[in-house]
Amino acid sequence: MDKVRIIEIKESVFADNDREAERLRAELKREKTFLLNLMSSPGSGKTTLLMRTIEALKDKLRIGVLEADIDSAVDAEKVATTGVKTIQLHTGGMCHLDAGMTEQGLKELGTADLDLVVLENVGNLVCPAEFDTGAVKNAMILSVPEGHDKPLKYPLIFTVCDVLIINKIDVLPYFDFDLDKVKEYAHMRNPNLKLFPLSAKTGEGMDVWLDWLQQEIKDWNQTT
Amino acid sequence: MDKVRIIEIKESVFADNDREAERLRAELKREKTFLLNLMSSPGSGKTTLLMRTIEALKDKLRIGVLEADIDSAVDAEKVATTGVKTIQLHTGGMCHLDAGMTEQGLKELGTADLDLVVLENVGNLVCPAEFDTGAVKNAMILSVPEGHDKPLKYPLIFTVCDVLIINKIDVLPYFDFDLDKVKEYAHMRNPNLKLFPLSAKTGEGMDVWLDWLQQEIKDWNQTT
Repeated sequence: MDKVRIIEIKESVFADNDREAERLRAELKREKTFLLNLMSSPGSGKTTLLMRTIEALKDKLRIGVLEADIDSAVDAEKVATTGVKTIQLHTGGMCHLDAGMTEQGLKELGTADLDLVVLENVGNLVCPAEFDTGAVKNAMILSVPEGHDKPLKYPLIFTVCDVLIINKIDVLPYFDFDLDKVKEYAHMRNPNLKLFPLSAKTGEGMDVWLDWLQQEIKDWNQTT
Repeated sequence: MDKVRIIEIKESVFADNDREAERLRAELKREKTFLLNLMSSPGSGKTTLLMRTIEALKDKLRIGVLEADIDSAVDAEKVATTGVKTIQLHTGGMCHLDAGMTEQGLKELGTADLDLVVLENVGNLVCPAEFDTGAVKNAMILSVPEGHDKPLKYPLIFTVCDVLIINKIDVLPYFDFDLDKVKEYAHMRNPNLKLFPLSAKTGEGMDVWLDWLQQEIKDWNQTT
């Protein structure tokens, strides 16, 4: 596997994370770089979805990836095989990234020549939802084996996300997962949440997600 | 479904959590109550495993359950259908329980007449691992759909646990999950970690887990 750069990021010194996030977003706007914050539980298939997304879009967009984990570089090594610029961020045990930590990663990656940067956040449904990273859009993945009751138990992450990807629909026959119920519960938390049921493994449903992402990137670059 | 009591627990005031945890453990020892701390990602099957465990043991042991979640009472309502004393703890957005928070729950539950209390911790592989709850033993669940690389990415939780339950082995044919690899990675983190591959849904492998738990409870009551 390719060797990837590992950055030990430091806890942020900023008292007002929301202001830092707004400042970072304005800077990304000037550079015409779209930052997507991808959140989920451990094992929901974030890395596989990301790799399929990169493979589909890398001829159209210049892409970079920030992989955040407590330890190891397994995800960054996998993603680096797609050929895009990838950096592994170690959070020093912290369960989330904030805007200051994200900015440290972006500076190491270099964003001037990138159209899209995906931040794969720490696998966790609680802490990452509490911090605006400066991303333009927030997406979360809920995978079929996790169950359809998650919007009831982890309300905040469903509230702060723009998109809910329901991954691993190829294994729907083997689990008691009710797609209608998850829609109902998720929309109780956030009526504007867009739902994309798909399988990153088989490719089913990926086109709707890819269309949405490309349209958002286009809109980000056109609006002033 | 049965209505269950919901307790909003408060952030602990204790500076030294480890000392509080030791004190709580000593108190449980005097009462001959065994506290098991059950941790995992969201959706690994903690509640199902817990219900199957209760059903198998409730005629032999007096059992109580503390369900910790950010919001909702769905798990406590499910567990209460088994007939054991169950309380839902709301953490007020916090991603873990410490010893002081656990003690608040235990006091509400009342432990004097209980042999076994199971604390179902917040679904999260990061934060709960950092706090000793006062439990006699720590068990974690990793489910097959989550992937075998988790010990590489979330080291601490594998280090602090006594038992790793590999749940959902009934779906092994549908996922790229390597049981030998997960054993190798988990034992890198903790050579003493006991591994129990099982399916709480089909019952396969449950006996080994139940034997271990009953033996531990017996040992806890016999040693002084």
